[in-house]
Amino acid sequence: MGTDNIQPSRRKFLQQTTVAGTGLLLAGPLNLFSQTTKTEYMSKNVKTKGYAGHDTTSKLTPWNFERRAVGDNDILIDIKFSGICHSDIHTIRGHWGKQVYPQVPGHEIAGIVAAVGKNVTKFKVGDKAGVGCMVDSCMQCNSCKNGEEHHCETTGMVGTYGTPDKTSPTGITQGGYSNNIVVTEHFAIKIPESISLQNAAPLLCAGITTYSPLMKANFQKGDKVGVAGIGGLGHLAIKLAVHKGAEVYAFTTSENKRKDILGFGAKEVIVVDSIDKLKPYAGTLDYMISTIPYAYELSDYAVCVKPYGHFTQVGQPINGEFKIDNAKFFFSRVNFNASLIGGIPETQEVIDHCALNKIYPEIQVIKASEINDAWDKVVNKEARYRYVIDIATL
Amino acid sequence: MGTDNIQPSRRKFLQQTTVAGTGLLLAGPLNLFSQTTKTEYMSKNVKTKGYAGHDTTSKLTPWNFERRAVGDNDILIDIKFSGICHSDIHTIRGHWGKQVYPQVPGHEIAGIVAAVGKNVTKFKVGDKAGVGCMVDSCMQCNSCKNGEEHHCETTGMVGTYGTPDKTSPTGITQGGYSNNIVVTEHFAIKIPESISLQNAAPLLCAGITTYSPLMKANFQKGDKVGVAGIGGLGHLAIKLAVHKGAEVYAFTTSENKRKDILGFGAKEVIVVDSIDKLKPYAGTLDYMISTIPYAYELSDYAVCVKPYGHFTQVGQPINGEFKIDNAKFFFSRVNFNASLIGGIPETQEVIDHCALNKIYPEIQVIKASEINDAWDKVVNKEARYRYVIDIATL
Repeated sequence: MGTDNIQPSRRKFLQQTTVAGTGLLLAGPLNLFSQTTKTEYMSKNVKTKGYAGHDTTSKLTPWNFERRAVGDNDILIDIKFSGICHSDIHTIRGHWGKQVYPQVPGHEIAGIVAAVGKNVTKFKVGDKAGVGCMVDSCMQCNSCKNGEEHHCETTGMVGTYGTPDKTSPTGITQGGYSNNIVVTEHFAIKIPESISLQNAAPLLCAGITTYSPLMKANFQKGDKVGVAGIGGLGHLAIKLAVHKGAEVYAFTTSENKRKDILGFGAKEVIVVDSIDKLKPYAGTLDYMISTIPYAYELSDYAVCVKPYGHFTQVGQPINGEFKIDNAKFFFSRVNFNASLIGGIPETQEVIDHCALNKIYPEIQVIKASEINDAWDKVVNKEARYRYVIDIATL
Repeated sequence: MGTDNIQPSRRKFLQQTTVAGTGLLLAGPLNLFSQTTKTEYMSKNVKTKGYAGHDTTSKLTPWNFERRAVGDNDILIDIKFSGICHSDIHTIRGHWGKQVYPQVPGHEIAGIVAAVGKNVTKFKVGDKAGVGCMVDSCMQCNSCKNGEEHHCETTGMVGTYGTPDKTSPTGITQGGYSNNIVVTEHFAIKIPESISLQNAAPLLCAGITTYSPLMKANFQKGDKVGVAGIGGLGHLAIKLAVHKGAEVYAFTTSENKRKDILGFGAKEVIVVDSIDKLKPYAGTLDYMISTIPYAYELSDYAVCVKPYGHFTQVGQPINGEFKIDNAKFFFSRVNFNASLIGGIPETQEVIDHCALNKIYPEIQVIKASEINDAWDKVVNKEARYRYVIDIATL
């Protein structure tokens, strides 16, 4: 295809990619040829290979689908690694409501920028980039303007997978168990050079989900912080809280995680094989975060916090419902709240913070063919502590 | 009975009552003769007439029982008025756990001091005195020492009725639907001269239960405060919040309370005949308190509070259990907490505050024979707004 007869906007794009390509030659291993061939993504849908769920019960299987063409404000990311989050399982299994299928889960996405729209300024081809739990919002309301896009007051945030979306050829957004993604640059996160893509991926959900409330929590160096549920989110919560100076009390149901947990820097591990094990901790903690993603004795955990302290729930159970014992709340005087991921600026912050301070998740890199097994292990509390899919094996 | 042969401690008491009696002659209508005859209460159990529940379903009936003799730190109160609280119904009906019967409910007690133990300093015979929801606690732990006796860390507070109690001849504490009560002076509240006993009674539970969280709530003059459930507690919450300078939004299910509620000073009345009526208020209130004493759509009410604000539950439902929708909490970012009455110093404070500022409950004085009807009306939301029993009719 010649360039004589193309639209002005298209010409501008090509000029821009040439400039970006110059940067790329300095920064990364891709060559100009491979970059310029990406221009095809600007005019037609992007072909994608993924692993999709097809109903609430059966296994995920390979599935080819299309993403929208790369728009002026979009980037195309060649996905290299994608984390497995318990939310993926809850969603595909219909635990949080009826779903559209086929649906590709995954919202801990790390890869390399393969193409950029003409208005893109934050990324150039070859950059390391990530996508977390959302890919769009109105960007007009106060929440969006204040960097709390996940609390968008008009359309609500557009989730990375499963959200009805007119721009998606499949009618819904499709997630990161796939080899590429097209996303508005605003919703992509810059991944620092110093952190590997596989370590960065889990920070985009597990990291931000625990980081956001931990940074808001009013605890000081040396304060006692409880973390309940030591899986993908919980183990990062421990590391983040320890780094902030907390004395961390880790509550788990898995005795065989004890040694690991102490290795993450926790002061004490409480194996809650009976709810009585919580009793000695009543009223002792300055703050507590729970990542437990199923119905559980929330009130018995919450009362471990000192009077007038705060307890934050970040795990989301089946049907989203918890039962609380009101008397335990009025006797304990603990404040309950819940927290949902974090905004884009804060997601950038956690990635930068973790890269700078070498706070990395504990990961197990798996092949795409191992996804279904990995899901079983997540449900059975056998993950240590985050499965990350090597997308090259797709 | 002569006084020559009595114990030294007894003699000291008589001396003390004489001194108290002097004060009494100045302060009140009782004469010295009627006072000294009360000394009989120091050595033997006090005979009491009450209205008791006998099981979870049948009507309350008159019942004669005994209270402990007046101890050195006790006062005897001749009860004049006793409020009817929804908690009385929940307790006797077994909604909050198995009960011992016969049991006399009532924890909004106002009367006149009829006798004082030898160590008593806060009261003299003839004083106006009240008793709220508790009659004892360890008084040794930090909570007790800090005026939060309701959060006693050792024995727990001893409730005014239904709590196992070795000092009570019936084995449990017995409440205020009765003509007298013996109580440690610390747990009795001084009722200012300027407030009538019938107006003071409801302040001892409904008043303190709403006052305590409202005073702790971090709202400023002109802030929007929601009150959900406009009964005995809710109508006082409105008056107290209005007096603190709030713009009050009252949520009720009773259209026919609208005019009254506006009369209490509320800015707006929202009749929640459908949960959709709450939607326009999402994220609009600076603080909210709910007095609703049954299971209800708590999360839908809580989301009316602005992000990071607080929602306080003071009504206690059957079995004490609420279901919460975690997603509504993480999207709203509202803090949930619950509150239980208040300590003795704060209960004194609310009585003084209300007397000084003429903040009175809306009461309907009833005869003892009307108690069972009144209970039905409370359950059917027909109370306007607090029934107070005239104990003279017992």
